[in-house]
Amino acid sequence: MAKIAFFSPVQEGILEVENLIRSQADGFHPDLRAALDLLLSSGGKRVRPALTLLTGSMLGAADDRLVTLGAAIELLHTASLVHDDLIDSSLLRRGTPTLNSKWSPGATVLTGDFIFARAAKLAAETNSVEVMKLFAQTLTIIVNGEITQLFSTGCHFNREDYYERIYAKTASLFETATTAAALISPVDEQTVECIRRYGYEIGMAFQIIDDILDFTADPMLLGKPVGSDLRQGLVTLPAIYYAESHPNDPDVQALIKGSCGGDESCTSRLVESIRTSSAIQAAHNEARGFVQRGLAGLKMLKDGVERQAMEELALYIVDRQQ
Amino acid sequence: MAKIAFFSPVQEGILEVENLIRSQADGFHPDLRAALDLLLSSGGKRVRPALTLLTGSMLGAADDRLVTLGAAIELLHTASLVHDDLIDSSLLRRGTPTLNSKWSPGATVLTGDFIFARAAKLAAETNSVEVMKLFAQTLTIIVNGEITQLFSTGCHFNREDYYERIYAKTASLFETATTAAALISPVDEQTVECIRRYGYEIGMAFQIIDDILDFTADPMLLGKPVGSDLRQGLVTLPAIYYAESHPNDPDVQALIKGSCGGDESCTSRLVESIRTSSAIQAAHNEARGFVQRGLAGLKMLKDGVERQAMEELALYIVDRQQ
Repeated sequence: MAKIAFFSPVQEGILEVENLIRSQADGFHPDLRAALDLLLSSGGKRVRPALTLLTGSMLGAADDRLVTLGAAIELLHTASLVHDDLIDSSLLRRGTPTLNSKWSPGATVLTGDFIFARAAKLAAETNSVEVMKLFAQTLTIIVNGEITQLFSTGCHFNREDYYERIYAKTASLFETATTAAALISPVDEQTVECIRRYGYEIGMAFQIIDDILDFTADPMLLGKPVGSDLRQGLVTLPAIYYAESHPNDPDVQALIKGSCGGDESCTSRLVESIRTSSAIQAAHNEARGFVQRGLAGLKMLKDGVERQAMEELALYIVDRQQ
Repeated sequence: MAKIAFFSPVQEGILEVENLIRSQADGFHPDLRAALDLLLSSGGKRVRPALTLLTGSMLGAADDRLVTLGAAIELLHTASLVHDDLIDSSLLRRGTPTLNSKWSPGATVLTGDFIFARAAKLAAETNSVEVMKLFAQTLTIIVNGEITQLFSTGCHFNREDYYERIYAKTASLFETATTAAALISPVDEQTVECIRRYGYEIGMAFQIIDDILDFTADPMLLGKPVGSDLRQGLVTLPAIYYAESHPNDPDVQALIKGSCGGDESCTSRLVESIRTSSAIQAAHNEARGFVQRGLAGLKMLKDGVERQAMEELALYIVDRQQ
């Protein structure tokens, strides 16, 4: 983490966030402490709490409230991953065994619930009703997105569905990570709106890049096969761009009609077609556009080490290779 | 519901609570509305929101905030039941099919999460940071209790463990149902404390009576076999009283040593011994003691239709047959 420049201004804060997260199991069942340790040790870039800390530091929020808020944000994210991995039966995340790979489904459900409860407790400790409302609304959006995805049938090459899905999955929490920090800072509504916009735009870009990496990254680094989204019936932006420019590709047609089914060679061929097509660059350009819009709003805020770090973070998001 | 006298002062409020709960799925995935309808239709006595409405009306809270709070309380309860039934693989609750009996485990987990999110949203809409903190703390206690129970091994005839468990399972939310209503009312700290105590005491009594009914109620009414707790290795107050007065009963000894195991005749015999012993009356007397302590605090509050209803509710709890 120390290698990524934008973390430097908040490196100490991130450690405080991690310590605060670890302490959330104090006084409760000892296995909950073990679970939190496992979840923290599996790494993760802590982009969300970094966003909260940078935003709040730039806008003059109190340090202790920011650490509390950063921990709340990371715990909300962690809890939803715990339930996600259980539902998807994922055994690894970032190369580390998931909780559900070690614990029973019941214990995993309850640990996720416990982490939600601790996220809510920390969010309440910011003493901001607005932050609480934002938290509850964000959790609603995330879960509704997951339910919509779970209940959806067939492959849809639909941009609107895609944007809605990545907003629910990723951008909503990025937006909340920045907006909540602004809400506990002494700033006006216009600044809150700039900051919300920044969080939203880089959140959308973050997920688009994730979806590109699913096609282009080294499967060893990614810990899953190339094109795993499409193989699971999940149509992402590269696939949408490809289908738009190759509407008559028989593999696209087969996928839309649902006649690809269990035919591994059909999806494998399509994954390879997408991976080597201009759709990757087109999706990348779109992510870059989101980031540029996010950065535009920052210009009106006061310059300083935090604003520069937020700019670096935005650029890191579109340039990252994993 | 209309038949139970203590509901009369808040009957209309309860209907508003139910409508507010139903509306929580508006704008989200249609199956979530179906899930809320199913969960509401399965009945339930709505004792918790009734407690909130009665307490708040007595203490002068605004009606709309009370309905919001009552819905938040009932949703928190509902969400934890949804996850509980999934973990226990229960197919029926109060004679109605559970969500997990109809939906996949993944959809059930997410529906529980969605309901938690809506409970948090409504709690935040009371605009009270104190209420939010109480909510988060209560969810933590409930979930920690479930995890402790899930991870516990062997049969423990231990009073302290029992009290802790029924506090986590039931009394904590009863306490929150009354305390939160007091927190949004124009009253002093001493009144909040009386009201908290009332909620705590009748919550403890409520669970003790539930645990007695597990031995004494008509299995048809209960929808599960007599002594189902003990059959699942869960030692409740009647069993504790019985073991205290019959320490040398070989079935008690076998259960403690874990040598009862899958021996159905051993637990069946013990269930029958407890059911026909004075342990039932002893447990009942203890529940009555909790209720009396809860009622004592109410005496210092102003008399009126709500206080009388709260007294009736407390007495109903110890006298109910199902």
